[in-house]
Parts: sequence; structure tokens; C-alpha cells
Amino acid sequence: MTDVEVPESHPRYESLLTRHRIEEGVEKGITSKQGLIAQGRGEAFDYLLGERTIPSAREAERVAAAYLLLAEHPVLSVNGNVAALCPGEMVELAEASGAALEVNLFNRTPERMQAIVDHLREHGAEEVLGLTADGRIPNLDHERAKVDREGIGTADVVLVPLEDGDRAEALAAMGKTELVVDLNPMSRSARSATVPIVDNIVRAVPNVTESVRELRDASRQELEAIVEAFDREAALAAAERAIREGGEE
Amino acid sequence: MTDVEVPESHPRYESLLTRHRIEEGVEKGITSKQGLIAQGRGEAFDYLLGERTIPSAREAERVAAAYLLLAEHPVLSVNGNVAALCPGEMVELAEASGAALEVNLFNRTPERMQAIVDHLREHGAEEVLGLTADGRIPNLDHERAKVDREGIGTADVVLVPLEDGDRAEALAAMGKTELVVDLNPMSRSARSATVPIVDNIVRAVPNVTESVRELRDASRQELEAIVEAFDREAALAAAERAIREGGEE
Repeated sequence: MTDVEVPESHPRYESLLTRHRIEEGVEKGITSKQGLIAQGRGEAFDYLLGERTIPSAREAERVAAAYLLLAEHPVLSVNGNVAALCPGEMVELAEASGAALEVNLFNRTPERMQAIVDHLREHGAEEVLGLTADGRIPNLDHERAKVDREGIGTADVVLVPLEDGDRAEALAAMGKTELVVDLNPMSRSARSATVPIVDNIVRAVPNVTESVRELRDASRQELEAIVEAFDREAALAAAERAIREGGEE
Repeated sequence: MTDVEVPESHPRYESLLTRHRIEEGVEKGITSKQGLIAQGRGEAFDYLLGERTIPSAREAERVAAAYLLLAEHPVLSVNGNVAALCPGEMVELAEASGAALEVNLFNRTPERMQAIVDHLREHGAEEVLGLTADGRIPNLDHERAKVDREGIGTADVVLVPLEDGDRAEALAAMGKTELVVDLNPMSRSARSATVPIVDNIVRAVPNVTESVRELRDASRQELEAIVEAFDREAALAAAERAIREGGEE
């Protein structure tokens, strides 16, 4: 995170850097106007959370890691804001967990798809799915339904950070295990997730990667115990309490 | 508000229309990338407020109206998001209150200044200040300090909706009576205001205009009584409570 001249001592260092990456994403044709507005919404929720990973989110990140390790065919979905905010971190998580990367856009255009694939490759990705688009998510309109059959189409576990509510619900309806990163615990995406992670994506993804590394040698039984102990309703309630009251647990 | 095809029955009608106006602002060169992010932050706070004018905000809007009527030289400051979101409403408030309109940008470029002046004129404004820029706000760097001497430079009361924290503080330090519209009651802008109005600008401006009309025939003494009865700390606390706890007063 040294691609902009903001002194690290600045009290808003992380926030300014994040915003800089998002603006750069616009210039590269990666981030859309809707993406900028979504970034602002995220900033407000993160501000109310205290711009920190709350304990219930850290737990959810560990549970997400366990799901990725248990999966037969895990996929990490990447949209414009994810690509702009943490391209290298997503590539690292894919490598650590053995998951595939798939570009998956709400406002799909060939130019944005290609710009994001290129951006991920610049950050070290080898294979990036999403361009084939030979699969469909049922009950979504044409452009929004497109996925790769070999990717999200047949995935059992999908990490969908910053996902649109309609699509998050449609993926859940397909029976997939959905790991959602979303700063609004009241959003439809968070509410339809198997594992809602209410945290800033720039903190969440490295945390999931850290947990994947910690749990890599755990037995299937241990991983299943972690997954079974997770209480999604309690995690959502704790996050909402943190945002509303400024405290948690 | 009929410039986009969203059925009025849609549960998110106001929110979608607002977003449409902001995006149109981008296309016209009025709204900046920072403006889009700021819009998103506002959406999140408004969502937590329940997308309604809370009672303490309605009171602040009435107090702002009283200040405008008591002023010798009131000015309404217009930035990119204000111009995109409620150009006609700002013109109407200027006419009702006898205040001047001045374009005042955080990221000032001649093109954006002109685009906003033109946009306000299309919405009925006659005189629009801001292009002369022969005055300065002390303690701000060059471009951000620019104002019209005959406008904000010598104004006694300034309405500054959606203002940057540095500038709101610098205007307050000049001794001006500042009426701030900001959905985040914890922002520096809201905290430096004489009258913080924690409400969505698309609701706030018409409310201030309504109060100006109601109070137009009030005596100076009545107006001064309204102004003196206002407790800004209580208003900020009520707004924060509404956002944090979902209730108020």
C-alpha cells in the first residue's frame, strides 16, 4: 500500500489510501459510478464501526477460511470495487486456499471485464475466469445472470465480496455456500449469506488468508466443527449493535 | 422530480431518483468522483436515520430560516452535489429568503464552475456569484480559499450544504453564522456549524424554504427568540442518537 503519497502518520491514512485506489480504479475503467457511491456507503458504515475488525467479524473470517478449505470447488468472485481495492490480496487468498478467481460484474461490459482481468493479472493472478460466461444464475436478467460454468456455475462455496442483493439472493437460492463481505449487516447480501463478514474488504481478505494458513493442516473434522459452531444470526446482530451503539459484545 | 423513469410506487423511489440526479451530474461535469463517494456516505447515514426528517432537524431548519431572515447579507453556497441534487430548490430558497447564490467548490476548476453556474441558470437562477473569486477565506490553501468578496466574503450568514470540514471550520473562524446541512452529525462540518441540520439536502432545502415563507411576516423580536432558543448540542446529540439507535427524542 505505497502507491500514493499520503504520510503513514496521517490519522486517516488507510481511508485516504482506499479512496485513492478507488479513484484510480475509475481511471482504469474498473470502478463504475455505482461503485464510487457504494464505496461511500461502505465508508460511512466503517466509520460507525470504528474502522476496525470487530470480534464477531474476525470469527466469521475464520469460519469463511474453514469453508474454503472444506470446499470441493471454491470460487472467489471479483467485481470492480474488489479489483480496485484489493487485487493483490484476492490473488493471495486464491493461492492460499486453492480457490479460482472469477470476475463477476453487476454492470457487465466487455471493456470492464477485460480491464479487471488485466488488473488481476498485473497483480499476479494466473487464471482468471469470467470471460467465457457459458453458465447462468437462474432468476436474474440476462447480463446479470452470466457466470462461467466451470467457475461460479459449478462452485460449491463462493466468496462474494460487496455483492449486489439480487445476485447474492439468487446464488443462495442455487444452494451455494455464500461467504459475503459487506459493511452493512442489514443489507440483503449480508442477510442471504451463509457467512456474513461485516468488515472492510481491505481488512477482511487478508484476515481470511491468515486463517486459511493457520487452518491448512487442520483435519476435516476440526474444520467441520468450526463451521458448525458459527451462528450467523448472532454475528449479524453483533455487527448491527456495533454500528448502532458503537460497542460490541 | 420526473426526469427519470422510476415508478413512484417503487419503495426506493426517492433514493433511486436522487442517485439518478447525481449520476447525471457526473455526465454534465458538475459532480466529481469525490462527490459520488460523498453521496454514498450520505445514503448510508440517511438509511440509518430512516430516510426521514427527524424532529430536531425540522427544528434546525426553522432556525436556519430565522437566521436567513435576520441576516443583512445572506449567501447560499452551492457545490457540485448541491447543484446536481436540488438546483431548483436552491434557487427557490434564494428567492424566498433574498439570499445570494454562490458556487463554491472544493475541487475548483473553471469548467466545473461554469457548468454549475449554467445548471443553476437553467433552473431559474438570475445572478450566480462565485466566478469573480476576488475574496479569500483565511487559512486555506489557494484554490480552496477562493470566494467572491461581494458574496461569501462579506456575508454574515452562510448556508453551506454538504461542505468540507476544513472549509466549514475556516468559515466559522471568520465569525460567520454557518447553517450546515450534513447527514453525519459527527462530521467536522456539522460540529462547526451555528445551526447543524442533520437531514438529506433534498428534504432540508424545501423545508427551510417553507419555514422562510411561514416566518416572513414575523417580527425581528420573534425571529431572535427562535434563534436564541436553539440548542445546537442537543440537536447534534438527538441526530446521533437517531442514527445509532434508530429512534429519537
